[in-house]
Amino acid sequence: QGDRQGMDGLLAPRDREDRCHSRSRHHLYRQPSRFKPSKYLVSKLRQYEALHQRCAPEAEKSRQDGGGGSSCQFLVWVSYSGLGNKLVTLAATFLYALLTDRVLLVDPGVDLEELLCEPFPGSSWLLPSSFPREWLRGLNESSQHRFGSIVRDAGKCVPDASHLIAAPGKVYIHLTHTYDEQDRRFFCEGEQEFLRKVPWLFIKSNNYFVPSFYFMPTFRAELERMFPERETVFHHLGRYLLHPSNSVWARTTRYYESYLGGAELLVGLQLRTFEGSIEAFSNQVLECVVENKMLPNVTRDDEASRLIDGGEDRSISVLITSLHQIYYERLRDMYVMFPTEDLSRVKVHLPSHEGVQKTDTSDHDKKALMEIFLLSFCDTLVTSPMSTFGYVAQGLAGLRPRVLRRLEDDPTQPACSSVLSVDPCFHAPPLYDCDCKGGRDPGKVLDAVKHCQDVKWGIQLVNNPSDE
Amino acid sequence: QGDRQGMDGLLAPRDREDRCHSRSRHHLYRQPSRFKPSKYLVSKLRQYEALHQRCAPEAEKSRQDGGGGSSCQFLVWVSYSGLGNKLVTLAATFLYALLTDRVLLVDPGVDLEELLCEPFPGSSWLLPSSFPREWLRGLNESSQHRFGSIVRDAGKCVPDASHLIAAPGKVYIHLTHTYDEQDRRFFCEGEQEFLRKVPWLFIKSNNYFVPSFYFMPTFRAELERMFPERETVFHHLGRYLLHPSNSVWARTTRYYESYLGGAELLVGLQLRTFEGSIEAFSNQVLECVVENKMLPNVTRDDEASRLIDGGEDRSISVLITSLHQIYYERLRDMYVMFPTEDLSRVKVHLPSHEGVQKTDTSDHDKKALMEIFLLSFCDTLVTSPMSTFGYVAQGLAGLRPRVLRRLEDDPTQPACSSVLSVDPCFHAPPLYDCDCKGGRDPGKVLDAVKHCQDVKWGIQLVNNPSDE
Ligand SMILES: Nc1nc2c(ncn2[C@@H]2O[C@H](COP(=O)(O)OP(=O)(O)O)[C@@H](O)[C@H]2O)c(=O)[nH]1
Ligand SMILES: Nc1nc2c(ncn2[C@@H]2O[C@H](COP(=O)(O)OP(=O)(O)O)[C@@H](O)[C@H]2O)c(=O)[nH]1
Repeated sequence: QGDRQGMDGLLAPRDREDRCHSRSRHHLYRQPSRFKPSKYLVSKLRQYEALHQRCAPEAEKSRQDGGGGSSCQFLVWVSYSGLGNKLVTLAATFLYALLTDRVLLVDPGVDLEELLCEPFPGSSWLLPSSFPREWLRGLNESSQHRFGSIVRDAGKCVPDASHLIAAPGKVYIHLTHTYDEQDRRFFCEGEQEFLRKVPWLFIKSNNYFVPSFYFMPTFRAELERMFPERETVFHHLGRYLLHPSNSVWARTTRYYESYLGGAELLVGLQLRTFEGSIEAFSNQVLECVVENKMLPNVTRDDEASRLIDGGEDRSISVLITSLHQIYYERLRDMYVMFPTEDLSRVKVHLPSHEGVQKTDTSDHDKKALMEIFLLSFCDTLVTSPMSTFGYVAQGLAGLRPRVLRRLEDDPTQPACSSVLSVDPCFHAPPLYDCDCKGGRDPGKVLDAVKHCQDVKWGIQLVNNPSDE
Repeated sequence: QGDRQGMDGLLAPRDREDRCHSRSRHHLYRQPSRFKPSKYLVSKLRQYEALHQRCAPEAEKSRQDGGGGSSCQFLVWVSYSGLGNKLVTLAATFLYALLTDRVLLVDPGVDLEELLCEPFPGSSWLLPSSFPREWLRGLNESSQHRFGSIVRDAGKCVPDASHLIAAPGKVYIHLTHTYDEQDRRFFCEGEQEFLRKVPWLFIKSNNYFVPSFYFMPTFRAELERMFPERETVFHHLGRYLLHPSNSVWARTTRYYESYLGGAELLVGLQLRTFEGSIEAFSNQVLECVVENKMLPNVTRDDEASRLIDGGEDRSISVLITSLHQIYYERLRDMYVMFPTEDLSRVKVHLPSHEGVQKTDTSDHDKKALMEIFLLSFCDTLVTSPMSTFGYVAQGLAGLRPRVLRRLEDDPTQPACSSVLSVDPCFHAPPLYDCDCKGGRDPGKVLDAVKHCQDVKWGIQLVNNPSDE
């Protein structure tokens, strides 16, 4: 138990009285991880915690001094986008902090403080409230301190980026879907050299940009030591960093105990759709779970005498998360109307159906976080293509889910297919062009990085084929 | 078990292979009745079964002969109104058959055959299909063979009804909410004398008219022998007569086993409302269940340290039936968001939310019947005022529910109150006027019959105060 609770050293040893319930009690709900963190990762985390404890209190002073006056360097994660996006970019930004010995500070936006526990022992990860929030909110592709504009102003592409010289006190790294060719040079080693001299970096992103770190040899070497099992980057960092607040955790465990606990098998279906596609998607989901034997088929002959009531067979709980309730209703009704072929009992649950995304509304976000965690307690998962909401769930669970075919894909393709990796997909990777020779397909340069199933132009960390 | 299965003699002994699963297996789901049927009732039922077996096959011939040619007399129940209404009038009409030695035949309407098993051993209760259905459908307050019009045509009120002479071959008894003063004389002993000579009676009703039988001394004497515990009339007759078809039963037990089984307490809330009243009603329901300690209250302080997860306490299932899902969502969310004061776990279920009544649509009616039966498996019930749907559930369960205050009632009244009797309320009883002396309030003539809580002008069978 002790080991499961501490996740094999991933979590810092704490007082018995860790006030964050989800951190001290996750192991009562979630399957133990199939993956062990490397010793090297564990030591990096302990080092980071010491750095954080020393440096976080100096943030305010450093800011006032315009970046000087402290030996510490800072990295600010700026709140942006939906919850799944936030959680993958938090992990990616934290990894960048680990790789660059920076202290991660987070802008909590509207409600992050209500959603997550403080992850680091001894000092807060919250950006001091004296920081001008207006300025953070306004950061975008045309902001003054943008890294991309510094690169553009420096002139023509240079492989070692030696043309970038005067390092300012702060730089804004723009990594959202609107980032341009210059912003993308963030993923080149020369440019990283330059950034090492900047005391304050600010990152805003809605992308899991970790896979592109592998294109920088120094980072790659470090990453291969930290994560010998490549697909576990988000898995370990997410389990280390992301702990629901006590209020969210209490809901999560109440929901689990009331509705999901006790079943012999817990199957999660993350159904992220947009109005209009519902009918086709609904059939596809059913096809996926039945053809892959994730759920039993039903027999329409409900008079079959062997199928009468009173059977005490295997019980399966299905957790559906979705903005819409139609999938839930169909599946639930199917299993009420017809007996299953193998006599197992299937009950279906939907914790909420919010109708539309209402990001940055406290109660809505709490539901979303609860549902991500409930999904991460499941034994098997089906996820929706292109959804970071699903990526977080699979990553925390440490599972390779089946991902549903996209609606725009060829309908003769299977309804869903197994993904290659537990790790999230980077939806908008830069072409590989650090040598200034013209872009190359980033899914075809390294063994470590392949195109994703659900997003053909996206990339994803995969284990070496020989490790499988 | 044998006794529970046969309900203390209420059900006829059958082959081991009763093909109606609900009849042979009800005892696996429903609480055993607190009430025993009287020996006299049991013998009446056995006599009735013999009569039915002998006479039902003669129905066709009797019809062709215009009522002659058979020693048997018939009583036809005409399909009409919502499912709850149908089931209470079926029981009431069957009781009338028992009291008058007639054979009950039912017009199955659109889907009754799909909903209920055949109740009588050896021969069907279905009206032969050769009977003109058009004619049945058209029966109403202006039909030619209406009993009320015979009474009107015979002239002024006569206490012993000796003015009614020439008995026709068939009479239509109009007992819906549009029945008039003449139709109401059905509930007088003199008029019953006259009806005894009519071979074919047809009844259409949406009312549980049993309580008015107690105003006829001959019937009353018989009823007091059959039902020494007066409030059990519908309870016993309903349990005797109403058995869901195998298809409905299979759904019912699957739903029960998947969602409701296993809880230590099963609380049923039957929430029958009409668009517009939902908000106020929702608060009222909560007030009712919490104030009467049917469900635990929650504490809004969800950080209280004693209330953290991991508690393994009492589990309560709540079954809500309603056309609308808002009550379900509110109650479910409340128990997910906040811990209960007594640490019990409360899970809430809603098998369907049909939005609007769609009577005589097969799948809709199957859901309704399933839900009535699920309610009848509950340990305690809250019902809605004026609803026969709730009456059937409480009657089958043998429970006195708490009935919710009507919206039009004084809101300072309690949110709900215990009903006086398990037996349904007759919503539109005639005034007591068999002596032709002018109507008297039927709730004030007999000990056996009192006004209902939920419908102030309605009447209901109650036990003698001394029996309580
Ligand atoms: N509660 C809940 N909210 C959802 C669900 N799917 C989407 N949402 C909402 O929509 C947002 C989607 O944004 P995000 O989490 O970034 O995921 P993505 O857009 O699928 O990559 C979520 O954060 C929720 O606010 C769901 O299944 N359950
Ligand atoms: N499935 C379901 N149907 C309902 C519910 N409440 C009302 N209905 C529908 O509306 C009809 C109401 O008519 P009836 O059963 O006669 O009950 P009453 O109108 O309440 O006396 C039902 O038969 C159903 O068709 C409910 O809680 N569940």
